[in-house]
Amino acid sequence: MIWKLALLGFGNVGQGLARLLVEKRKELKRKYGFEYKVVGIYDIKMGGICIKDGEVDLEKLLKIIDGGGMIADYPGASKDLNALGLIEMCQPDILIEMTFTDFETGQPAVTHCRQALANGIHVVTSNKGPAALAKKELWKLASENGVQFRFEGTVMSGTPAINLATGCLAGAKISGFRGILNGTTNFILTKMEGGMTYDAALAEAQKLGYAEADPTGDVEGWDALGKGVILASTLMDTEFRIKEVPRKGITQLKPADIEQTKKEGKRWKLLVECREKDGKVALKVEPVKVDLTDPLASVGGATNALTFDTDVLGPVTIIGAGAGRKETGFSILIDLLWIHSIARGKPLLEVGE
Amino acid sequence: MIWKLALLGFGNVGQGLARLLVEKRKELKRKYGFEYKVVGIYDIKMGGICIKDGEVDLEKLLKIIDGGGMIADYPGASKDLNALGLIEMCQPDILIEMTFTDFETGQPAVTHCRQALANGIHVVTSNKGPAALAKKELWKLASENGVQFRFEGTVMSGTPAINLATGCLAGAKISGFRGILNGTTNFILTKMEGGMTYDAALAEAQKLGYAEADPTGDVEGWDALGKGVILASTLMDTEFRIKEVPRKGITQLKPADIEQTKKEGKRWKLLVECREKDGKVALKVEPVKVDLTDPLASVGGATNALTFDTDVLGPVTIIGAGAGRKETGFSILIDLLWIHSIARGKPLLEVGE
Repeated sequence: MIWKLALLGFGNVGQGLARLLVEKRKELKRKYGFEYKVVGIYDIKMGGICIKDGEVDLEKLLKIIDGGGMIADYPGASKDLNALGLIEMCQPDILIEMTFTDFETGQPAVTHCRQALANGIHVVTSNKGPAALAKKELWKLASENGVQFRFEGTVMSGTPAINLATGCLAGAKISGFRGILNGTTNFILTKMEGGMTYDAALAEAQKLGYAEADPTGDVEGWDALGKGVILASTLMDTEFRIKEVPRKGITQLKPADIEQTKKEGKRWKLLVECREKDGKVALKVEPVKVDLTDPLASVGGATNALTFDTDVLGPVTIIGAGAGRKETGFSILIDLLWIHSIARGKPLLEVGE
Repeated sequence: MIWKLALLGFGNVGQGLARLLVEKRKELKRKYGFEYKVVGIYDIKMGGICIKDGEVDLEKLLKIIDGGGMIADYPGASKDLNALGLIEMCQPDILIEMTFTDFETGQPAVTHCRQALANGIHVVTSNKGPAALAKKELWKLASENGVQFRFEGTVMSGTPAINLATGCLAGAKISGFRGILNGTTNFILTKMEGGMTYDAALAEAQKLGYAEADPTGDVEGWDALGKGVILASTLMDTEFRIKEVPRKGITQLKPADIEQTKKEGKRWKLLVECREKDGKVALKVEPVKVDLTDPLASVGGATNALTFDTDVLGPVTIIGAGAGRKETGFSILIDLLWIHSIARGKPLLEVGE
């Protein structure tokens, strides 16, 4: 089977995915029997194209974009295409939703996901909105229509988080988790521990592209919190309203706090913590003094880390990249491969096909 | 579908699995639609039973064993059953191979696996022999017969290692790995760093049940090496003969070495390292001075850790328990769930069934 893919959103993640699909095309076929055709792409800023009975040449498109062009410059591009039109006209097997996150409403991504799933189209997304705000409804819709709704990329980009917990730890009871889920703040804290002021560290993070011009989403803990809400609702069957969760960022930490904590043999980390106690699940985001013997303490720079507390294994910690084009592109690719594996009824092992 | 299971070997791992199957029976059905019947069990020391058209009552059996009894004391136990007879007579859907590892020949476990797979029976094993010595043949046989051969438990007990790399990191190129794969030696090194002598630390490890009376397999690096061979052959498509791999244990480390390394801001760890260079894959086991900034440095006591080097994500590290009854029992359970998920064509997500 050749999977027909439609890409909704073609910014950093979409382009990262497109490059991986091109680079790994032969290997994906050889190792996993995975074959694909991109039948359509739509991006609100770059334009759209739908080639229902053919295939978008990704190499050609990426060359146009590397040369400063847009999807609208690709031969056959359509001026009238929009997001829902992409789903309807291109009739993909899998919709890849990579538009921008809106934590208030989850829109328009929730509508995109709903529309696809209701039409028997699998959905893979890196958009945090649908995963944080509409996961239960979308899973149910997927199940009713015999397709999958997957969102590995919403927590630690391609580093296994959702798939690790729901896949490799299925059958274990997860009673809580704690993690460093925002690379920007961890980078700033690491630099401050090395002697930099907050302002200098933030400036460096901005220079390296880790932090936005307005860093509020990162430094006030909103980004980490959104990821915590996705994890908590996915793993612990609890719904949270983002604005009701206790949240502290790192802006109140002074160099003197950092120094004092170093002397205590500890390190400040902005942690997302979720605990079940007496049947209630509590979630919060705040800077915590972490003991050096904790695996989370050794996680420096823009790296992310996440510890799950389980009944059968005790704590299980994963450490890896938490952002990046290629990394988030990979999170989409791995979800595509899981859809493929389950659909063809074969495990993802290299068997020399 | 109700999965018919046959258990071959009923020592620590088998009993750990049986307890999990009993404890989690309702939850596995509710969350994943996973149902099972144990149709037969055989253990060379404890006897065997086959109830082809019924089911072994695991609770009843575990009570007999907790009271000092054996499988042979279970009503209807058969005196004439043996390992291959279990496969033939009980006709399970899945054979769970938990007999003792023989790194020289892999036998008799390889024969058990072969027999089952050739008859269209899935195999899950915690036995390192078949995974280290006959993986390619067994995967091929499984593929030809439309079944699976899985062995998560052979590397870090239930902590995701094989499934993490072949599942969650499928599509990524793994160019190498390094890890702490033997808990006993890591426990001894941690204690020595705290000021104990090697002999005192070994004695404590033996008292806690981490080390055998003859600790050679652990302290000379054989156990870690066996796991390294399984990982290398699974992930990097290379076959190694265990005796040809460079291997150093921890017995040559003196308290003075430990002290000196502490002063350098580093820690000794017994590492399994595998690297690809110029198309050749090199594997070795030896004590290495690990920098404190390396996630592996923070791994103390009997915990295991493993870092995969990938093309798309850079390093990805997993840290967790590396041994234990319940933990290894869980490694079997997770492989059962993956077989179930792939066979029914649905992902392992809780969808409130």
